[in-house]
Amino acid sequence: MKPKLSIVKIGGNVIENEAELHKFLDFFSELKGAKILVHGGGKLATQIADQLGITSQMVGGRRITDKESLKVITMVYGGLANKNIVAQLQAKGTNAIGLSGADGNTIQAVKRPVKEIDYGFAGDVEKVNTAAIEKLLKADFTPVFCAITHNNQGQLLNTNADTIASEIAIGMSGVFETTLYYCFEKKGVLLDISDENSVVTHIEPKKYQELLQNNIIADGMLPKLENCFHALNQQVNKVCIGDISMLQPSSTLYTTITL
Amino acid sequence: MKPKLSIVKIGGNVIENEAELHKFLDFFSELKGAKILVHGGGKLATQIADQLGITSQMVGGRRITDKESLKVITMVYGGLANKNIVAQLQAKGTNAIGLSGADGNTIQAVKRPVKEIDYGFAGDVEKVNTAAIEKLLKADFTPVFCAITHNNQGQLLNTNADTIASEIAIGMSGVFETTLYYCFEKKGVLLDISDENSVVTHIEPKKYQELLQNNIIADGMLPKLENCFHALNQQVNKVCIGDISMLQPSSTLYTTITL
Repeated sequence: MKPKLSIVKIGGNVIENEAELHKFLDFFSELKGAKILVHGGGKLATQIADQLGITSQMVGGRRITDKESLKVITMVYGGLANKNIVAQLQAKGTNAIGLSGADGNTIQAVKRPVKEIDYGFAGDVEKVNTAAIEKLLKADFTPVFCAITHNNQGQLLNTNADTIASEIAIGMSGVFETTLYYCFEKKGVLLDISDENSVVTHIEPKKYQELLQNNIIADGMLPKLENCFHALNQQVNKVCIGDISMLQPSSTLYTTITL
Repeated sequence: MKPKLSIVKIGGNVIENEAELHKFLDFFSELKGAKILVHGGGKLATQIADQLGITSQMVGGRRITDKESLKVITMVYGGLANKNIVAQLQAKGTNAIGLSGADGNTIQAVKRPVKEIDYGFAGDVEKVNTAAIEKLLKADFTPVFCAITHNNQGQLLNTNADTIASEIAIGMSGVFETTLYYCFEKKGVLLDISDENSVVTHIEPKKYQELLQNNIIADGMLPKLENCFHALNQQVNKVCIGDISMLQPSSTLYTTITL
């Protein structure tokens, strides 16, 4: 039987709220077994960029990463957010080690080709170095990835944290029984958007089609769910979507997605 | 026989000059055997702090690290400088992994006690986790340390890069035959400050006393040399001081210090 591995992704809404982050890191520390954390930090970067007088250009919710924006992202994701999370996890007894995809050549990406839009220094994941990540896990480190990769030619690249999390989960599924957790601001996929507790607790392909047809899954939820099924179709065991409380063993109110 | 380990420290003068950094990273990549890089980045931090409207207070060449300055240092040392160095080393075929002292709990420090001056979030190294660093070296990673430690209670601390380098060298000397390299802007200890090539190529304790008496070693050189002998007295095999070219096998014009 394969050993278990949890890959947990948190977004900006957790990182920017000190109390929420603290609570999350407690839950993450208490999580049993091998684990990996992936974090974004978008709003914090925008805030520092504003202070530096750098305008963050966004197209369809995606940042255009010019040279100056990449600097800010490298400072905020790789430095400020990552090192503070690592220090706090260490204080909670989790042997965290902070990484970008350049560190240990863990995640190699390619600069997104310019089509209609030039996203600048944005990276599309090409290869997860599962051997390197496995070495770190075996040495009892808990990797904490920020949303930065590299092209192995010296260029750092801003990369979507959801994608990093799913690609790591996919890569590690050869060796581990993987569960991918997406923590966001809601308790899961909601039947009724105005009712926080109307969580669909289990989605499999048939249910997914049904939810799609009834327009329950739309807008921002659609790419999220597509990403989940992409991971499941590539051997990830289980994907869970919910707020940070889903990491607690007693929690039941979140969405589990399986094939 | 113990395996060899090189610990190389570079200062701000190398990091801030792109061409110089590139050249240094080539030399570092070509260095044979196990190796560790330690970098500062002081001037770059001051520059970003200025842009953010944060005044860097310095006393006797040391930064007073208030909460806002620590933020900048975490961004610049841990993020901008560290991740770019790591990405460039990876491109040169060196399997670099960027670390602060919080990562893998590699370097624990204590917040400097307030005496006449309150240095703020400045750390004095308490313990180098040699087992963790050895694990990384054995797994074929090349650690790249920025000048940040932690107190293992969630607090990051700004820490002198020279000290980090010597403390790592001292800690690793139990297992490795260590050479500590301090790269700075001069070719070594100079007999005549106005003659770049008047390098004292070898210093041992007797020569050191002689140089002290003749006022050859004074000002900024004094604490540097004290730091070197401190390391040598704690089992570090050899300390070398010079500019980046001393890492080249063909180089002879630099200062070697031994007991």
